[in-house]
Amino acid sequence: MIAEIISIGTEILLGDIVDSNSQYIARILTAYGYDIHYISSVGDNPGRLKKTLEQALKRADLIITTGGIGPTDDDITREIISEVSGKPLKINNKILEKLELFFKKRGYPMPENNKKQSFLPEGAKTLNNDVGTAPGILLEHKGKIIVSLPGVPREMKDIFNNELIPKVLSKNKEKIKSRVLNFFNIGESSLEEKIKDILDQQSNPSMALYAGEGEVRIRLTAKAKSEKKIEELLNNTENIIREQVDEFIYGVDEKNIASALSSLLSKSNYKLAVAESCTGGLVGNRITDFSGSSDYFLGGFIVYSNQAKINQLNVSKDVIEKYGAVSPETAGEMAENIREIMKADIGISLTGIAGPGGGSKEKPVGLVYLALSYENNTEIYKLNLTGNRKRNKWMSSQFALYYLYNYLRSKQDFIT
Amino acid sequence: MIAEIISIGTEILLGDIVDSNSQYIARILTAYGYDIHYISSVGDNPGRLKKTLEQALKRADLIITTGGIGPTDDDITREIISEVSGKPLKINNKILEKLELFFKKRGYPMPENNKKQSFLPEGAKTLNNDVGTAPGILLEHKGKIIVSLPGVPREMKDIFNNELIPKVLSKNKEKIKSRVLNFFNIGESSLEEKIKDILDQQSNPSMALYAGEGEVRIRLTAKAKSEKKIEELLNNTENIIREQVDEFIYGVDEKNIASALSSLLSKSNYKLAVAESCTGGLVGNRITDFSGSSDYFLGGFIVYSNQAKINQLNVSKDVIEKYGAVSPETAGEMAENIREIMKADIGISLTGIAGPGGGSKEKPVGLVYLALSYENNTEIYKLNLTGNRKRNKWMSSQFALYYLYNYLRSKQDFIT
Repeated sequence: MIAEIISIGTEILLGDIVDSNSQYIARILTAYGYDIHYISSVGDNPGRLKKTLEQALKRADLIITTGGIGPTDDDITREIISEVSGKPLKINNKILEKLELFFKKRGYPMPENNKKQSFLPEGAKTLNNDVGTAPGILLEHKGKIIVSLPGVPREMKDIFNNELIPKVLSKNKEKIKSRVLNFFNIGESSLEEKIKDILDQQSNPSMALYAGEGEVRIRLTAKAKSEKKIEELLNNTENIIREQVDEFIYGVDEKNIASALSSLLSKSNYKLAVAESCTGGLVGNRITDFSGSSDYFLGGFIVYSNQAKINQLNVSKDVIEKYGAVSPETAGEMAENIREIMKADIGISLTGIAGPGGGSKEKPVGLVYLALSYENNTEIYKLNLTGNRKRNKWMSSQFALYYLYNYLRSKQDFIT
Repeated sequence: MIAEIISIGTEILLGDIVDSNSQYIARILTAYGYDIHYISSVGDNPGRLKKTLEQALKRADLIITTGGIGPTDDDITREIISEVSGKPLKINNKILEKLELFFKKRGYPMPENNKKQSFLPEGAKTLNNDVGTAPGILLEHKGKIIVSLPGVPREMKDIFNNELIPKVLSKNKEKIKSRVLNFFNIGESSLEEKIKDILDQQSNPSMALYAGEGEVRIRLTAKAKSEKKIEELLNNTENIIREQVDEFIYGVDEKNIASALSSLLSKSNYKLAVAESCTGGLVGNRITDFSGSSDYFLGGFIVYSNQAKINQLNVSKDVIEKYGAVSPETAGEMAENIREIMKADIGISLTGIAGPGGGSKEKPVGLVYLALSYENNTEIYKLNLTGNRKRNKWMSSQFALYYLYNYLRSKQDFIT
């Protein structure tokens, strides 16, 4: 099956935003066995969008558009699909009711131009949007499928994952299944080098490396006629990979280290507290991104200044003066003290130099100490990070979550 | 002048990489007054690349391709340009010498397949590549210009900035300039409705609305022959817009509310502390994303549990029992106490229900109280948010930064 992706919006052509939607869609379509021949971006221009859609209908079986289904006048996707397919736009009362409810909840009347979002080409189905006003549109036309999704990535992904995958993509005949191996503490190119032979020899399952947000993933995608055969193919390849790089694999089919940690914590009885300097609250923020985190997360201190480290967190002034705020000694006290102050089972702390200023020869930008306090123990880790400020903060939080995760894994017996 | 961008490489169609090159090129072309009608991605497939190039030659004056000019077999851009233009490939000895020197410097002989990079369509010029082996190619063909750049972003940018801009782009006569108006606390469609007349009537400057991460922006882009005329056009339109919606404009040419706040804080002598419940550290994290934030940010408490609110932040147990943890009374005490504990000039606090659990009829998911404590004052704000958990956290942080920003603006006299 051949697929084509069209992203719609003048802001893409102006270079105001990068078209990350197309990459997201392309990756998943590929995993579901689709071949993509073209990806195009076109502005909010009726004539050019029409040409692009007509051309796509000639050369692809599945066409996915993003953008242009919002409430404003330059949102024209709906109209052009109607024109190209010859299916007139009709109002859909269910959508209209939903829209009105959406605005009612927010306590103000629906702006008149949102009404436009309740129109659909005749015969089209809606794809439910749980996070915004514009539902996705699915239209079958002369044996081809046109799907229109919103341009806002959050909404596009919601519809894509919860509606499009189960209703359309998973119907592709051959059985296909993916498994993701999650790696931490190894770079994409080092990993590729270590498993080059496997990558070169393997075709089913196909293997793809992805790097993002400080983690690397390998996606294995197997095709076969039976589930059993697929499992066998995936297991074999996973085992071969583990022979080479098992130490860097922290999980299978995890979203990322934060969500893996969250599911482990929610099964435990441990209570957690954080003391953050260089990360400024990022670790607490990431832990509380998960529903139910109040069951295991008590809170913590953001001790950005030395004054806060000493006065609020009771880090000894002598230790800070002798070893500095960025030192294993300070990190250790921070973790122990936050654990004691908040009566937590585990305390975790970070202190470091995120940059770009504040570095020295002895203590360069990117130096971070991280401590974990539990039972009678304090583990201290030293990181030497090499990114910019935001990246260093992010990677510090990644390591904090990773060491926490490892500690909980070592205590797995609590899991029922 | 109309331009078109074509990115070449199967890895883009597989979703393995995001095509950030096109955004980079689009942004600069726009600034130089080019109109971009289409951006396409196509794989390393001769037939499809040929069709795409032929189509682009029909509809654009300047065509920029990225990718496919490397040394390997699937690098086919050079060959297809030769085919489409009817200009046979000829070896260019200057390039060959340069290539050999490049490898000699690195201490090993040139691999045979790199020789391919020294071939050019007859009549084409090279664009010097200071950071890699593949020079860019510039071919004039029937009044159109085809430019081929490498796909590696570092090399593409080197050639683009040092060769293409001075040799081609800066020859475009008309001057162009953009100005961004930053809005907060108004949705995209409400804003559009309020300024519909202006949007409909305006063509120079052109106007575009963008929404993202809880903010809306309007970009005004003016074209004229002189800088003075451009400024005049931009000022006039800005004034007309301000007449309608001035109250929602928080800044001009700001990146976002967090960076606008950061530049204001760095000019002040105020010291800041945060007390976060539902945001879990997000506000502190966003404040510390900016270099130099240690000058004004002391730190804060993440008081996720009631226990932490009472024991660490000294919120009165009676207040929590009587009014609840999510109440104006608790928010007020949180802001006042964190300010006092950390000896800050401004204390800011957030307490709310991020969801999806924890809501009730009286206190639904999305209810957030936010307090700002300064001098003899405590301001309390109530938010009714309607997103999912992450979105509610994000919007809470947006409002916190916005109210802080507004307070500092009201105290502008400190700014030198």
